[in-house]
Amino acid sequence: MKTYLECIPCFFKQGLTAARIAGLGPDEQKKILNEIARIIPDIPLEASPPEIALEIYKVIRESSGVKDPFKHIKNEYISYSLTLYPKLKKIVEDSKDPLLSAIRVAIAGNIIDFGVGNDFDVEETLKETMEVRFAILDYEPFKKSLNDAKTILYIGDNAGETVFDRVLIEEMEGDVVYVVREEPIINDVTKEDAERSGIGEVARIISSGSPAPGTILSLCNKQFLRFLKKADLVISKGQGNYETLSEVEREIYFLIKAKCPVIAQDIGVKEQAIVLKRHINEGNK
Amino acid sequence: MKTYLECIPCFFKQGLTAARIAGLGPDEQKKILNEIARIIPDIPLEASPPEIALEIYKVIRESSGVKDPFKHIKNEYISYSLTLYPKLKKIVEDSKDPLLSAIRVAIAGNIIDFGVGNDFDVEETLKETMEVRFAILDYEPFKKSLNDAKTILYIGDNAGETVFDRVLIEEMEGDVVYVVREEPIINDVTKEDAERSGIGEVARIISSGSPAPGTILSLCNKQFLRFLKKADLVISKGQGNYETLSEVEREIYFLIKAKCPVIAQDIGVKEQAIVLKRHINEGNK
Repeated sequence: MKTYLECIPCFFKQGLTAARIAGLGPDEQKKILNEIARIIPDIPLEASPPEIALEIYKVIRESSGVKDPFKHIKNEYISYSLTLYPKLKKIVEDSKDPLLSAIRVAIAGNIIDFGVGNDFDVEETLKETMEVRFAILDYEPFKKSLNDAKTILYIGDNAGETVFDRVLIEEMEGDVVYVVREEPIINDVTKEDAERSGIGEVARIISSGSPAPGTILSLCNKQFLRFLKKADLVISKGQGNYETLSEVEREIYFLIKAKCPVIAQDIGVKEQAIVLKRHINEGNK
Repeated sequence: MKTYLECIPCFFKQGLTAARIAGLGPDEQKKILNEIARIIPDIPLEASPPEIALEIYKVIRESSGVKDPFKHIKNEYISYSLTLYPKLKKIVEDSKDPLLSAIRVAIAGNIIDFGVGNDFDVEETLKETMEVRFAILDYEPFKKSLNDAKTILYIGDNAGETVFDRVLIEEMEGDVVYVVREEPIINDVTKEDAERSGIGEVARIISSGSPAPGTILSLCNKQFLRFLKKADLVISKGQGNYETLSEVEREIYFLIKAKCPVIAQDIGVKEQAIVLKRHINEGNK
């Protein structure tokens, strides 16, 4: 997905949030916004939003001297999500369709996304997500693919959301490879975060190689690209992964809560909609 | 009120909305955002948001070659509001406290503000505003001031809102001077707009001299400044006027719907709150 002009105000909003989380004072926050302003004229709109975000968070890291401003937030949300884990398991076990409920749980966890904002309520979102209608639900082909799959590539998104992902992974029978970011960026999941969330107990964890808040293929490592090509089933969580993988030439199932108007428009759903979308290689349509 | 860092993303959002309303294509829209980015580093945060907005809309005017991009929108909202006028009058006439109802009507009209966004519903806002609790309601001193006032300065905000203002003005007994912007900016009210709204039948219309979407005193003309000093009662509508007059050394009654988080925080109320706030010169408190 390309960067829309609507993303530009949002980059400033994200920069401001991150600068504050990094503990910068007002003058330094303003400097960050000035630096982002300096980058704007050179933004190629064909680039995906995570490619631009990569530049912006680099500015924040360099200006603040803090390598991982979101570290404490990630730890906090992992710990909190782990306390919810028994509840999440019970929701799935008590439901008529445990797989579909686990999909809903995994989508609910996607609300823990500091790239979009910081005024979310996880438990309220969980409650809503268990009941709301899917805007897109390619469930039958997903079930069939899952049933046939020996190898499943599960591309993670945020720390904390990982615990919700675990619940879905536990409903799957194939071998799951869970994909994380190469380096800390926003509150995106790294190897350490995935391990702290207990993902290591249910899947093999690999890095995509991408240091961006998404999966920028040109920055990905060979191991990941091999899995992406060969896995029987690919599941992609969240906005950043959608933004970078929406034009990939293979079948991918996107699990998303459309938390921003631009993504919602690109997918063709309303804001806040939940989606299990089968993406098919243009050539295979 | 100074400009907050949160205003910066919003300037880009406003620029984009205005560029689209001015009929610019995507490449030209991007150029506008680049131009705004160029201005950002030089923004003095002590300046009020309308002072910055003045620069931003100048960029849009110059780049688009359109002097008044919002002209058709202003005309549309004036015409629409005039069709609502009989309904607004009936609401006030049927109420137990016509003055308070007219204040609510005038505040409801403040939703017609393209500086904040363009996804508002006037009639829905009217309905809500007639029922919702005021977050601040300095009604008793207002009534007393109004009762004693021979000359009333009523500082208008947006075209269309003018018709709602007329309903409030018709509940007042003193001589009303209605203040408009010197030049077209966003959908702010100009002399022509006020006249088309029928304000000329109930008040004398003067320009403040300010070409900004607010009342920047250093840009105001002598006539307005004299009225501001001498009027028995000053009523100021909306955010832009609040942003530029919140530190003036005289008593002012602010009628506002706090449509953005920054204003809401500055006033000390929740977003979307409605307010009739008595501002008193610091020295008189």
